[in-house]
Amino acid sequence: MASWVTYDAANPFPIQNLPFGVFELPNGDRHVCTAIGDFAIDLHVLADDKAVFPDPRVREALKQRTLNAFMGLTHTDWKGVRVALQRLFDAGNAHLRDDAGVRASVMRPLEGVRMVLPADIGDYTDFYASREHAENLGRLFRPGQPPLLENWLHLPVGYHGRASSIVVSGTPLRRPCGQTKPKPEEPPIFGACKGLDFELEMAAYIGTGNPLGTPIAVKDAPNFIFGFSLFNDWSARDLQKWEYVPLGPFLGKNFGSTISPWIVTMFALEPFVCEGPAPTVPILPYLQQSFPGSYDVDLSVTLTTAEGESVVISRGNFRLMYWSVFQMLAHHTVNGCNMRPGDVIASGTISGKEAGTYGSMIELTSNGTVPVQLPSGAQRKMLQDGDTVSLHGMCQGPGYRIGFGPCSGKVLPANV
Amino acid sequence: MASWVTYDAANPFPIQNLPFGVFELPNGDRHVCTAIGDFAIDLHVLADDKAVFPDPRVREALKQRTLNAFMGLTHTDWKGVRVALQRLFDAGNAHLRDDAGVRASVMRPLEGVRMVLPADIGDYTDFYASREHAENLGRLFRPGQPPLLENWLHLPVGYHGRASSIVVSGTPLRRPCGQTKPKPEEPPIFGACKGLDFELEMAAYIGTGNPLGTPIAVKDAPNFIFGFSLFNDWSARDLQKWEYVPLGPFLGKNFGSTISPWIVTMFALEPFVCEGPAPTVPILPYLQQSFPGSYDVDLSVTLTTAEGESVVISRGNFRLMYWSVFQMLAHHTVNGCNMRPGDVIASGTISGKEAGTYGSMIELTSNGTVPVQLPSGAQRKMLQDGDTVSLHGMCQGPGYRIGFGPCSGKVLPANV
Repeated sequence: MASWVTYDAANPFPIQNLPFGVFELPNGDRHVCTAIGDFAIDLHVLADDKAVFPDPRVREALKQRTLNAFMGLTHTDWKGVRVALQRLFDAGNAHLRDDAGVRASVMRPLEGVRMVLPADIGDYTDFYASREHAENLGRLFRPGQPPLLENWLHLPVGYHGRASSIVVSGTPLRRPCGQTKPKPEEPPIFGACKGLDFELEMAAYIGTGNPLGTPIAVKDAPNFIFGFSLFNDWSARDLQKWEYVPLGPFLGKNFGSTISPWIVTMFALEPFVCEGPAPTVPILPYLQQSFPGSYDVDLSVTLTTAEGESVVISRGNFRLMYWSVFQMLAHHTVNGCNMRPGDVIASGTISGKEAGTYGSMIELTSNGTVPVQLPSGAQRKMLQDGDTVSLHGMCQGPGYRIGFGPCSGKVLPANV
Repeated sequence: MASWVTYDAANPFPIQNLPFGVFELPNGDRHVCTAIGDFAIDLHVLADDKAVFPDPRVREALKQRTLNAFMGLTHTDWKGVRVALQRLFDAGNAHLRDDAGVRASVMRPLEGVRMVLPADIGDYTDFYASREHAENLGRLFRPGQPPLLENWLHLPVGYHGRASSIVVSGTPLRRPCGQTKPKPEEPPIFGACKGLDFELEMAAYIGTGNPLGTPIAVKDAPNFIFGFSLFNDWSARDLQKWEYVPLGPFLGKNFGSTISPWIVTMFALEPFVCEGPAPTVPILPYLQQSFPGSYDVDLSVTLTTAEGESVVISRGNFRLMYWSVFQMLAHHTVNGCNMRPGDVIASGTISGKEAGTYGSMIELTSNGTVPVQLPSGAQRKMLQDGDTVSLHGMCQGPGYRIGFGPCSGKVLPANV
């Protein structure tokens, strides 16, 4: 598949990708868009072309300020738009290629475009689906006990996160303040977080929703997922440690999460589907998945210091997750809980088996006991003010790659 | 204060109340409204009257399908609308009283009005702020240990709930299915919930929001709260028990929560403000509150069986909560977490000191060991299919009462 838009084989946005996003114009308008090569394609403007998008429902959805309406259409509609775009940008198609006027109005150089949150995220759920991550934390927090709690192998453990504080890549993040209890024998204290961490995750956007009371079966789940983005679930380990019993993480998490602006569709990811780890204990029928549901996405994390030193501190792969996003969705709705278009389901921290593949500082440093060494001699036990954390994701195909675009955020000092 | 609208002293909606809500017309339109006596007042229509609402921002906000825009104005704007409404309905004011044509277009008998969710609830947080409730559950779940966990007296423990499954009073609720582990030595099983419970709570709506990174001080918190509704946080105790470590309640809660359609404003509640329990250990300055922040709201719960037997099973009062809603808001935002207009903060189960004042079945029945006896001879250890749970709230003033309106839901059988 070749396009008349030119780009090299390492470009994250070839014609095989066509992710969705939203950009904001200087006047405050927001337009739905896709990307190809080094260009954002303004779908708000392109939606006026009935030859490209004959369905009025689709045209109407592409005219909205967010992707929620388009997500709320069907899997067939999403596929139709993808096919229309691949046809439009196909090397042999002159419709847009040879129309300089329309090209100028719909193609914008990516570097000049201000991407924003692609959807109104109604509810955000965070899972805990990497066995290696759960075991790493279990060993750190409950030494001498089995690393996994008893329920972990039987169901995808998850909790509700805060939707309001999900911000788009590039938004700086202020170090939170809060209550901690550093000395067991003394009362809690108030101050700036001393255990600021990142978490390497992937986030799935719900496309089609389900009515309250009607579960989504695992076999149907693929048609309900719109696509994936990268997700950094920033964590304040010291706040979390003191607050989290018995109701779970709260202020240790809800001060901010960074999401990448582009949503890579399930169609683009299809060639990279693969088998995940097999369950090691029997699981209940509603969680049994008879098709491959993992995705071979190479992931990495870069730490860039205030001085400009930039180091890859973790390399992992999304395929290692014990629970698939389809199992997460089936579990989440088995009690009738309803999903709405634009809701987000995050995977939980993605860690591999070896050091260097862990998706958080607390794991990379064994809870701050073994600092990450930077080539300059600098060290990190946890994140410092001025640090920027960037997540990267990529699927390598034959002669092309599917990229996820930037997911980064810089740590600002606390307001104390 | 007397109105030209006539009602008796027990009416929940006297001129001192003027709660806000939204109703839906048969054509699907939704109108913001208030209530007085036995009438809903259509504020969407009344907003056209510039003599009543001179501020165009207010008129525009009252024309929306939800209250979010009005909530997003300022405390001063809310107060202005209340003053305008109290003036309009004052016994001596002829403006609407003597205009039969306009009266007919804005006053609708309450029994003919279909109330809906008053706001798009972006995020919903549930606290755990009744000491009696926390201690009751502690004694049931951790016998022989201190009933409160170590952090409970130092901070208002809370967690994120699911916003999508909050439904308005009158919506039936399907018994959830899910995974439980009734026998410790055997694997988990799947089936309909056997431990369906209610929780008597009050829910505060956020009015004004705060930007991410900017906390709300406890002294400023009263100006950020729009008002209160009744809230039933239905709970599946058996699902919750198996799933909740280490990340908190999830499927045991997110299958549905019932909220009353009317929001009683902080202005209407002002005469009923009172001192709550004093902290029994020193608390950090950001949680110290130098003004009374509890509210004297009489609460009760009625259970109505499928056979029509109706019994009050709990009587409590909101004033007993250990943590005030202002402390909850200060804590929730101390790390910079942002609130948006329409967000909901629920109190957690409201329980008193004596049996009969407990706000959940698990407490009323000592975890199912002492059934609630109904006069007919029927018993309840937990809720049965066909049961309807109704919450009631009321502040008794001199010659008038502030009512909260209905908050009820009927249990439908599981889809198994």
